[in-house]
Amino acid sequence: MSGRFETPDQVEAAFYAAFETMDPELMAAVWDSAQDALCVHPGGDLLQGHERIVASWQAIFTDARRPAIIYRLLDRKQDGELAMHLVEERIGARGEDAPSNRILATNVYRRTVDGWRMCGHHASLPLATGKPGGTDPAQRLH
Amino acid sequence: MSGRFETPDQVEAAFYAAFETMDPELMAAVWDSAQDALCVHPGGDLLQGHERIVASWQAIFTDARRPAIIYRLLDRKQDGELAMHLVEERIGARGEDAPSNRILATNVYRRTVDGWRMCGHHASLPLATGKPGGTDPAQRLH
Repeated sequence: MSGRFETPDQVEAAFYAAFETMDPELMAAVWDSAQDALCVHPGGDLLQGHERIVASWQAIFTDARRPAIIYRLLDRKQDGELAMHLVEERIGARGEDAPSNRILATNVYRRTVDGWRMCGHHASLPLATGKPGGTDPAQRLH
Repeated sequence: MSGRFETPDQVEAAFYAAFETMDPELMAAVWDSAQDALCVHPGGDLLQGHERIVASWQAIFTDARRPAIIYRLLDRKQDGELAMHLVEERIGARGEDAPSNRILATNVYRRTVDGWRMCGHHASLPLATGKPGGTDPAQRLH
């Protein structure tokens, strides 16, 4: 599974598999090796470049208990060798009835000489539950 | 300025001009009219479609004082008729020495029959200041 990904969807499946199984090698294989790869964790600042991004995931895997993740593709846009997916992630502790955190993420993929890879991941902080389309005061900032 | 945009950069400049001057007509012209346009305000849920997105900006403009905005392009990826920009937004009150809120946003543009338009905007909540690359506890969620 850490081989070549033929479509953005295959990369996305591997990304969430790496996240859920806390597999740093698979996570490293998912990400584009270019220095302009970008990752914004929820509440975090911008991380750039394969090495820093993979190190950040290793730190997350070291600290965390193994999560349960359900992801759902809400929208895709693609042209040529660039693809953008808007994904809803539900992340919780394993054994929960339903993952409790709902996170929106923009995932960006591109075709490289080694097949499709993730080159961008921008995730928001978990949304307040039960308020779809809500008017959180924070929204007024923007 | 509410005419045709020939490049993603022109759309981006118009987007931030519309935001800063609180101009709903220019904001409406910036956005792709397609139903798969996507907007995630900081802390907010997903908004889809031109009408809902423009209405959300009108609500923001109604509630807010006119802001001062400085934006800086941190990265761009483009292929064919799709472009993705990672932007740092500094948003504050007019008259402040320096805008106090620092926000990361992923902006997505595509070429339509009416020129380039914004088809995606995903903005995070403001980052804690003075902690570039910080390890906010919230990061551990993900």
